[in-house]
Amino acid sequence: MRVVRLFVIGLGAVGRGLMRLLREKRDQYARRLNVRVELTGVADSRGAWIGEDLDPEEVLRVKERHGTVAAAGGERDALEAMEDADFDVLVELTPTDIKTGEPGLSHILKAIELGRHVVTANKGPLAVAYDRIMRAAERRDVIIRYEATAGGAMPVFNLVRETLKSVDVLSIEGVLNGTVNYVLTRMETEGLSLDDALADAQSRGIAEADPSMDIEGWDTACKIVILANSILGVRCTIDDVDVTGIEDLTPEAIRIANERGYRIKLIGRADRDGDLLVRPCLVPKSDPIARVRGVMNVVRLETDLAGTIYVSGRGAGPLETASAVMSDILSIAERSPTTR
Amino acid sequence: MRVVRLFVIGLGAVGRGLMRLLREKRDQYARRLNVRVELTGVADSRGAWIGEDLDPEEVLRVKERHGTVAAAGGERDALEAMEDADFDVLVELTPTDIKTGEPGLSHILKAIELGRHVVTANKGPLAVAYDRIMRAAERRDVIIRYEATAGGAMPVFNLVRETLKSVDVLSIEGVLNGTVNYVLTRMETEGLSLDDALADAQSRGIAEADPSMDIEGWDTACKIVILANSILGVRCTIDDVDVTGIEDLTPEAIRIANERGYRIKLIGRADRDGDLLVRPCLVPKSDPIARVRGVMNVVRLETDLAGTIYVSGRGAGPLETASAVMSDILSIAERSPTTR
Repeated sequence: MRVVRLFVIGLGAVGRGLMRLLREKRDQYARRLNVRVELTGVADSRGAWIGEDLDPEEVLRVKERHGTVAAAGGERDALEAMEDADFDVLVELTPTDIKTGEPGLSHILKAIELGRHVVTANKGPLAVAYDRIMRAAERRDVIIRYEATAGGAMPVFNLVRETLKSVDVLSIEGVLNGTVNYVLTRMETEGLSLDDALADAQSRGIAEADPSMDIEGWDTACKIVILANSILGVRCTIDDVDVTGIEDLTPEAIRIANERGYRIKLIGRADRDGDLLVRPCLVPKSDPIARVRGVMNVVRLETDLAGTIYVSGRGAGPLETASAVMSDILSIAERSPTTR
Repeated sequence: MRVVRLFVIGLGAVGRGLMRLLREKRDQYARRLNVRVELTGVADSRGAWIGEDLDPEEVLRVKERHGTVAAAGGERDALEAMEDADFDVLVELTPTDIKTGEPGLSHILKAIELGRHVVTANKGPLAVAYDRIMRAAERRDVIIRYEATAGGAMPVFNLVRETLKSVDVLSIEGVLNGTVNYVLTRMETEGLSLDDALADAQSRGIAEADPSMDIEGWDTACKIVILANSILGVRCTIDDVDVTGIEDLTPEAIRIANERGYRIKLIGRADRDGDLLVRPCLVPKSDPIARVRGVMNVVRLETDLAGTIYVSGRGAGPLETASAVMSDILSIAERSPTTR
C-alpha cells in the first residue's frame, strides 16, 4: 500500500469539499488504486492543527463549531506548522490574490524548500510567479500539480501532459469562467441586464458577493497565464495579458449579435508567440465555443498533429474542484510513493 | 537519456504515419522529454526486418518500392522475428478483425509473453479479448496502451486514467465513428441518400472501399466494448453489444427529425450495469452530442463528482492516429525507462 500524507491549507468551500471527499472516498482509493491518503496537517487563516492521522470528519466539525482549526491545534501560522508536520504533499487552497499571489505563494515556496510536492487550486501564485515556482520545484525535484486552477472539473493540464505528449499545442482558446458564461447566457436568453443577471447568479451561489474578478476578466486572465506557461511554454505573468471584461456589455449588443448569427462570449486566448488576451468576442453560433452554456467551460486546443481538440466540463463547484485536487494528489502518490 | 526501442507490426496508413512522425519529431522528443525513440523491428503481412537502429525513412522507402519490408529483412513472420528482436514496446497496427482479433491478438499475447509493453491502434484484439490481454499483462507486469483505438486523436482512455483518478465514471456515450458522422452530416445538410453521401465520403478518402464495419455500427461497437472494459470496469466483448447501424436510414427520416428539433446520430453507449448499445438515436439539437459535425468524434462522460465532461477531437486520419500511438509510446517510456 502506498501512503500519501497531506497538509491542507485553506478550509473554504474547496477545502471543506476535499475533507468530505476524504471521508467518503478514501477507502475506495485504497482498494482501487492501492493508495492510502492520510491527513497530517490542516490550517486556515487563524491557526493550524497537525497530527498523525487527522480525521477529516473531526476537522469539519471543529471548523464549523469554532470557525477555525486553531481551536483544536493552536494559533501558530501555517508556515511554522509545516516545519513540524510530517507530510508528503502540500494542498494549497487559500483565496486567490492576483497582485501578490499571497499567502499561497509563500506556502508553496516553503513546501518546495522542505522538499514536499504541491497540489493547488489557487490561481494567484501561478499567475504571478509560475516560472519562479517551477524553477524552485525543479531544483528540489518535487512535483507541482494545479489541474483545478483552470476550469474546475474540466481536465486540461493533465490532459495535455499525459495524453498529448507527441504533439505540439499551437494555441489555446476558450470560455474559462463559469460565472461570466452563466451571466452571458441569461442576458442572451432572457434579455436581462448585466446587473439583473448578476443578481440572479449571486442568488444561486454561482457568483460571489464581489464578482469583479470574474466580470472584469481577471479570473480568465489568470487561467490564460497558467495555460500559456504550462502548455505553450510561454513565460508570462498576469501583467502580460491584454484584458477587457464584460462590465460594459449591454443586452442590446447581445441581441444584435444574436440576430446576426453570433453569440458574445468572454474568450481567453494564448498562442506560442506570447499573444495573451481576454476579451468579449463575437463567436459564430456554429462554433463549438459559442455552444457552451451556463457554468460549463470549454477549451479548444489547436495542435500540429492531432488537429483540433475540445474539452468541456463544469468550471466551478466545490466538489468538482475538490475532485480535480484529489486526482492530482492521487497522481502524485502513484509517481512518488511512500510505501509502508 | 531514456531509450525506448520499438517493434512495429503493420505498415498501412497509420504505420507509415508513425514512420513519418519518427523521422520528423524524434529529435524534438529527445530534447523536450529526454526520451530517445529507436526502431529495432518492423513487420508487415509478408515479412519482417530487424536491426539495431532502423531508419524510418529507409523503412518507408523499402515499403513503397517493394510493397513489403521482407525485401530488406526476409520472409519470416512477425511472431518469429519478435523473438530475435531487441525491443521494449510492441506497436501493433495490423488491420482489425472483430471476429477473431487476429493477427493482432497473437502478436500482443506474444509480446506480453516476452515481457514487452504493448501499444496498439487495433480494436480487434481488445474487442474480443480485453480481459484475457489485461490478465496476461498483469501477470508479466507489462503496460498495455490503446488510446488510438477509440476516436483517433480524441483523448479518452488516458484522460480518464490520468486526470479523473478521484472520480467514478458512471456512463459513457458518444459519437465514435467519423465516417458515419460525416455521412449523416451530409445527408442532413444536403438531403443526400445514404449511398450518395457514402460515395462522396469514399471519394474524399473518409470512407473505406468496404464501409460496412462503419455503417453497420460494428466499429462503434468495438469502441464501446473497449471503453466499457477500460473505464467502467465492465467485463464484456463485442458479442455483448446490441448493435443497429444506419444502413436503413433515409434522408426523409433525417429531415423529419430535423424539423422536430432533432439530429440523428449513431450513438454508442455503455453504463456500469453492463448495458451496451449502438443505435441511430434522435438527439435534441441543443445537446452537445448533436452538435458534432463531420469527422469529429465526441464522448460524454457522466461522473459522480466532476459532473459531465465532454471531449471532442478528430476521430480518424493516419497522422492523428499515429500521434495518439506516439503519445502512448512516450508515456510508457516515462514510466518504464531503459536508461543508457
